[in-house]
Amino acid sequence: MALLAVGSIAFDDIKTPYGQERNILGGSATYFAVSASFFAPVRLVAVVGDDFDEEHLRVFTDRGIDVTGLQRAPGRTFRWSGEYDGDMNVARTLDTQLNVFEHFSPKIPPSYADSEFVFLGNIDPPLQLHVRKQMARTRLGACDTMNYWIQRKPAELRQTLAHVDALLINEGEARMLSGTENLRRAAAIIRAMGPRVLVIKRGEHGVCLFKDRAIFFAPAYPLEQVHDPTGAGDTFAGGFMGHLARCGDLSDCSLFRAMVYGSVMASFAVEEFGLRRLLRLRPEEIEERFREFRHMTHFDV
Amino acid sequence: MALLAVGSIAFDDIKTPYGQERNILGGSATYFAVSASFFAPVRLVAVVGDDFDEEHLRVFTDRGIDVTGLQRAPGRTFRWSGEYDGDMNVARTLDTQLNVFEHFSPKIPPSYADSEFVFLGNIDPPLQLHVRKQMARTRLGACDTMNYWIQRKPAELRQTLAHVDALLINEGEARMLSGTENLRRAAAIIRAMGPRVLVIKRGEHGVCLFKDRAIFFAPAYPLEQVHDPTGAGDTFAGGFMGHLARCGDLSDCSLFRAMVYGSVMASFAVEEFGLRRLLRLRPEEIEERFREFRHMTHFDV
Repeated sequence: MALLAVGSIAFDDIKTPYGQERNILGGSATYFAVSASFFAPVRLVAVVGDDFDEEHLRVFTDRGIDVTGLQRAPGRTFRWSGEYDGDMNVARTLDTQLNVFEHFSPKIPPSYADSEFVFLGNIDPPLQLHVRKQMARTRLGACDTMNYWIQRKPAELRQTLAHVDALLINEGEARMLSGTENLRRAAAIIRAMGPRVLVIKRGEHGVCLFKDRAIFFAPAYPLEQVHDPTGAGDTFAGGFMGHLARCGDLSDCSLFRAMVYGSVMASFAVEEFGLRRLLRLRPEEIEERFREFRHMTHFDV
Repeated sequence: MALLAVGSIAFDDIKTPYGQERNILGGSATYFAVSASFFAPVRLVAVVGDDFDEEHLRVFTDRGIDVTGLQRAPGRTFRWSGEYDGDMNVARTLDTQLNVFEHFSPKIPPSYADSEFVFLGNIDPPLQLHVRKQMARTRLGACDTMNYWIQRKPAELRQTLAHVDALLINEGEARMLSGTENLRRAAAIIRAMGPRVLVIKRGEHGVCLFKDRAIFFAPAYPLEQVHDPTGAGDTFAGGFMGHLARCGDLSDCSLFRAMVYGSVMASFAVEEFGLRRLLRLRPEEIEERFREFRHMTHFDV
């Protein structure tokens, strides 16, 4: 089933203890779409500037991603510059230039209208809601958000959350949004805002899902070297939503598998800078690492 | 099979956001022994002072713990005072009075000599080694340690590690001991020091085990309220070693189950202050929570 992705496309300058790269293709929609494209047909809505050329476009089209909804605007594409040190869990933002992303207003092409799975990346909550309301055939509408919106647009964010089925956020954001430190109580408070499914991303400590009475944990894959954590969360979301769109099954069992596929995809993404590892990933590597997750978490009763 | 526990007995003053209790029975050997006693016969070696009375002794004897090795010394029992706030992950030590524990020299009663499982709690590394070398029949010798010994007695600690089969430490200690941030590389470095099995405790983020090529993760049980985290690590160790001593099986499968039993026991311990929850715990509650862990981590392949 088709999976619609709305979010940012960016050019990133990234520095980690393992090196430094400039001007590499990134952004939430990019990581999400590339990751999800291993599982299901992906439809992209994002905005780019004059500096986005054919070579960049091919990153998407080579993976079969539908770019009908890719908007072009005069000016430069969104740019982000960040640095990681030590434990690689937190990026220090050195510079953000919104450029064409500042006035991004997502337009949904008619050919996307029947998308059954929708992922609203981290953009202004009213824009997320605007897209969500146009998608009448959606079986699972998910969104991401960030500290900035939680603090600056709490009322608008609440309206969006009332209209999504799933929310994927990190641990610090969950605490900020709920106003409580305890993860289980935070989950109950956030789920009462609307999303039936809540996924909390905990970086190197893995991910956990809350839905009705079910709770599920998946660890992060223990890599010897994390070269670049940029995009790990969006790559996780791509694997998670991609699996669900592929199988069309929203049972607990399917959601749990989706958690593991998301973790698998994120573990590959951080092995190299930017999209490099994802772009040469083979489907059989995904399945092999999926089985490794089973060995790392299952025990006999 | 019999499980020998060497460590501290203390009286604790504890303050958390949920309350404050003074003068309650604690210490590493106490939490370990009470936890392990749900699984296997436990033999205790520790030291107490004049202020340790019959009522305190009954905490151990009521649970069938062998106290032949409990040493009495003139003076007061070890006292610790600590406080937790906010996220409950780190205790702030307000006061430590070693008292009789300062000159603790563990003596192994002849009736303990055939113990097949040995846990050396967090004491001076040469004392751990001294005990370890007396135990000729040991199938699994495990130890704990802490920042203090890693920094103050690195050479002595290395000697101890060369003679134990398993090391159980927390994440920060693993990074300090190995000199590396990355958990997987830290595990390889530490295992090269001696212990074939390494268990890293990550507080609210669960535990992970490294052994040869196997890696296993168990989450922390997501409680709505953690009332008092004191003793969680030792209670984990008690469940872990207790399960292994009960079944006598050191296969990977058995170690993975031991990880979950340890997590189960720790999750009960933190529900109330001090030992209170453990002392009224029923075996069927352990098995029920063990099954809950399965639901939270297993997925279909």
